[in-house]
Amino acid sequence: MHLKAVNLEEKFSLFHEHWTPKVVGACNGQEVKLARLKGTFPKHAHADADELFLVVDGVLRLVVPDGEVTLGPGEFYVVPKGIPHQPIAEDEVKVMMIEPLGTVNTGDAPGALTVAEPEHI
Amino acid sequence: MHLKAVNLEEKFSLFHEHWTPKVVGACNGQEVKLARLKGTFPKHAHADADELFLVVDGVLRLVVPDGEVTLGPGEFYVVPKGIPHQPIAEDEVKVMMIEPLGTVNTGDAPGALTVAEPEHI
Repeated sequence: MHLKAVNLEEKFSLFHEHWTPKVVGACNGQEVKLARLKGTFPKHAHADADELFLVVDGVLRLVVPDGEVTLGPGEFYVVPKGIPHQPIAEDEVKVMMIEPLGTVNTGDAPGALTVAEPEHI
Repeated sequence: MHLKAVNLEEKFSLFHEHWTPKVVGACNGQEVKLARLKGTFPKHAHADADELFLVVDGVLRLVVPDGEVTLGPGEFYVVPKGIPHQPIAEDEVKVMMIEPLGTVNTGDAPGALTVAEPEHI
């Protein structure tokens, strides 16, 4: 049994590319992922997965069918399963996500930014 | 569909008592809870639930059979299901927890600090 806490900033220091979720933990079939976001991500949905976004740094916009959610540091939002959402980060955002093991970042809209098997760091 | 992010500090400002987890969100059968901790909590285990602790403010010690984990702000640790753990907060700690819906704070060691039905705030 390991006895070391996961330090979010230490993990963020290990990568600098955008839109590449990294797995940093797991609990109850969910994975904890970190990502740096910058720019506009394709609109997509996850049919079977709610997706929790907790912003660590920066301002994240999530465009959803009913409007838009804006998240700053220390704020989280859960996109319910099946709801299309488009993340937009005008400046770089550092985000922690919680979603079921195996959830793919681009959901039902695979493309160039798809990360089918996120790295564990 | 609501379009408002959950602001952790805003939620913490709504309560000031210790060891009373408050539900602030849910995803995929898990609940997101906030608590203020101060002092020593009874040692307990959750037979069927991994429990994620993310420290927002303060320093939390988790005493486990193999030793101790220390968490500061921006650090998280997952206590695996079945593992006895004793949270200790020498000064006040603000923590976010993620655990399955229905997980009771005192696990297999019910007592005066048990909160069977945590408030949603």
